[in-house]
Amino acid sequence: MDYRSIFEDAVDTLRQEKRYRVFADLERIAGRFPRAVYRDGSDNAREITIWCSNDYLGMGQHETTITAMQETAGRLGVGSGGTRNISGTNRPLVELERSLADLHRKEGALVFTSGFVSNEAAIATIARLLPDCMIFSDQLNHASMIQGVRQSGMQKAIFRHNDVAHLRDLLAACDRKRPKLICFESIYSMDGDVAPIKEICDLAEEFGAMTYIDEVHAVGMYGPRGGGIAERDGLMDRIDVVEGTLAKGFGVMGGYIAANKAIIDAVRSYAPEFIFTTSLPPALCAAARASIEHLKASSVERSMQQRQARLTKAILADAGLPVMQTDTHIVPLLVGDARQCKAASDMLLEKHNIYIQPINYPTVPKGTERLRITPTPLHTDEMIFELRHALVSVWTSLELPRERADAAITASKLTSGDLTLPTIGG
Amino acid sequence: MDYRSIFEDAVDTLRQEKRYRVFADLERIAGRFPRAVYRDGSDNAREITIWCSNDYLGMGQHETTITAMQETAGRLGVGSGGTRNISGTNRPLVELERSLADLHRKEGALVFTSGFVSNEAAIATIARLLPDCMIFSDQLNHASMIQGVRQSGMQKAIFRHNDVAHLRDLLAACDRKRPKLICFESIYSMDGDVAPIKEICDLAEEFGAMTYIDEVHAVGMYGPRGGGIAERDGLMDRIDVVEGTLAKGFGVMGGYIAANKAIIDAVRSYAPEFIFTTSLPPALCAAARASIEHLKASSVERSMQQRQARLTKAILADAGLPVMQTDTHIVPLLVGDARQCKAASDMLLEKHNIYIQPINYPTVPKGTERLRITPTPLHTDEMIFELRHALVSVWTSLELPRERADAAITASKLTSGDLTLPTIGG
Repeated sequence: MDYRSIFEDAVDTLRQEKRYRVFADLERIAGRFPRAVYRDGSDNAREITIWCSNDYLGMGQHETTITAMQETAGRLGVGSGGTRNISGTNRPLVELERSLADLHRKEGALVFTSGFVSNEAAIATIARLLPDCMIFSDQLNHASMIQGVRQSGMQKAIFRHNDVAHLRDLLAACDRKRPKLICFESIYSMDGDVAPIKEICDLAEEFGAMTYIDEVHAVGMYGPRGGGIAERDGLMDRIDVVEGTLAKGFGVMGGYIAANKAIIDAVRSYAPEFIFTTSLPPALCAAARASIEHLKASSVERSMQQRQARLTKAILADAGLPVMQTDTHIVPLLVGDARQCKAASDMLLEKHNIYIQPINYPTVPKGTERLRITPTPLHTDEMIFELRHALVSVWTSLELPRERADAAITASKLTSGDLTLPTIGG
Repeated sequence: MDYRSIFEDAVDTLRQEKRYRVFADLERIAGRFPRAVYRDGSDNAREITIWCSNDYLGMGQHETTITAMQETAGRLGVGSGGTRNISGTNRPLVELERSLADLHRKEGALVFTSGFVSNEAAIATIARLLPDCMIFSDQLNHASMIQGVRQSGMQKAIFRHNDVAHLRDLLAACDRKRPKLICFESIYSMDGDVAPIKEICDLAEEFGAMTYIDEVHAVGMYGPRGGGIAERDGLMDRIDVVEGTLAKGFGVMGGYIAANKAIIDAVRSYAPEFIFTTSLPPALCAAARASIEHLKASSVERSMQQRQARLTKAILADAGLPVMQTDTHIVPLLVGDARQCKAASDMLLEKHNIYIQPINYPTVPKGTERLRITPTPLHTDEMIFELRHALVSVWTSLELPRERADAAITASKLTSGDLTLPTIGG
């Protein structure tokens, strides 16, 4: 049997649909983020500016995280040596989990190797332990949550995105006596919109459901201590399980949940993805903890990120670019076609030394292909103006669509207070 | 609804079955492995010797890996900044994948955040891409492989552990025209036995099946360059997909597959676990690559590990302890009861400052509960004698069962050549 050609054909399908992904070979430069060295297919290197990093606050290059990793590697080595149960529970990991529990004001926390795994393992395990559980899942939930729901084998009901009335109907239609788990995100990363957390918690209370929130795109970045949107809105105590990542706002890698001790102990004891995986290296845990503790105490990075995101939205919209309206730090530019989206990304890199990868199906629905821009506190005003110039040039060259109804943010709507420059450490 | 008590009850079940796991809080000491600081429930610290680490060669504390991590963190920071597609493909990761492809003499390699995820993602994706695929899976395959098989949604046939005749029957019974995938491990980690790789490859050829081998407990440790059992036995070119880990023999964390370019490209393009996960930090990739390259060139660690494993088996068997026969570096001591297994582990830690965690169901079948000892090149002869003393004392105190038919290794069977001491670097 010609197996090779089957796999080649599968990949050719993606090429034909212009969904084939080429990974840019990058080398970030500590202390100079968002600048990086890019190597093209012929291994030629040149410096570029990254405008699509999920290291939202630049903490991956913060002095305190680098020092923590280096110091801990020197003291304890580079690996943990085993699964959590087989000699892999290291001191910095224990301390990291305490720091996370404190961040979300929960009794405990549990760390996984990624946000994907934490969602898959936690949702599947929690739902399986609740007899005849019914899962209520937002229509736009992340792939990892969908995988967790599927893996649980439990019945599910999908509610329309952020649609509280629809969720109410589905809850009301479900047997009062069945355990219920509502799974949703605080910030949806591709559209940058925010869930009605309070209303969902009200419904959970009314119908006796558990709440599971994914704050992956919010932890570190929202709330007075970086606890996420639930912290910002004073709703943390109404959430049963919060899931987050150490990789985005905190700048390292790994995922986690925080919840009461009973839930943490049950997931810890029953989830195969957790049980059978080597734990995070102590040096990585120490870096993550340093980042979390720094962001608990410092709001400078958060303020500055918000400022640069607002400024970017305003300046790009003012230039007639199709900025999609968002409530958050995420700045999507609509292109609406996979081939053009890839072409725009390529031209930005080749001609303007700016890296923004194309976001195509299945990450977003067809027809809503986009460039997703993530301004960080370390993108200067000058860089924002360079970005505007480059984008306008690309939009003109490729004759991409301009204004849209939802691209309604303009510089004139910003008050001067919005653009006050805080200083930034690290 | 009282959710909390449902989770508490689930955990109580484990307690009643003596399967509740308490994670030992350890702090390894760089340069002094296998010594570590243990903290008990009251946070009192004392030094102990770890005898159950999966950092099989001590590479997690090797000078070259520590330096690579520290240097790369200083140069590039502590995180990658995104998924592979979203600015997270970093230079050290590209180089790591080249190093892995070279290790296994394959066209490409793909790195995941853990061995668990690599098995789950690769098996599920490969099987889903093969129309009407039939999976043949060894009965004792790891939980992560089982999850991959299940997640693929494809039909499966389980063959009796390492039973080539049974596998032949199952292959023969399957429609010749269906794509077939045989999934097995080279070393089964709890029993330490080795698969009949050549015979399985012969069958794969005869019946036109693909071969997928998990070499997680072999990479770094077997073969002239650490390519695993398939390299040792000259069979690498007959394996379609090899899966391995960066966490055990290589001492860091992460998992991978190596295969031809078509397979790598297909898994890279279709596996959600891969697509939607932040990539490994460059510092971690650099440490892993340093470890792999070191072990390609140096056999001292491998030889020394084999020597210390043989010596440990011989000395423990000679003392009348129930050493289970293995062909590998893994030394299981049969206890046969969950409660006693836990008690033995506790007593070793409390009275003898030796840490060996109990291995109970579901990791091994009920009635075969055991202590699983993993001698490394850095366990000295003196430590082995201390271990013997401690185990004999525990076995006497708890009146645990002694000799068994399969505990047939004694010191007299070892030739003096087996125990020649190579010197060890790092």
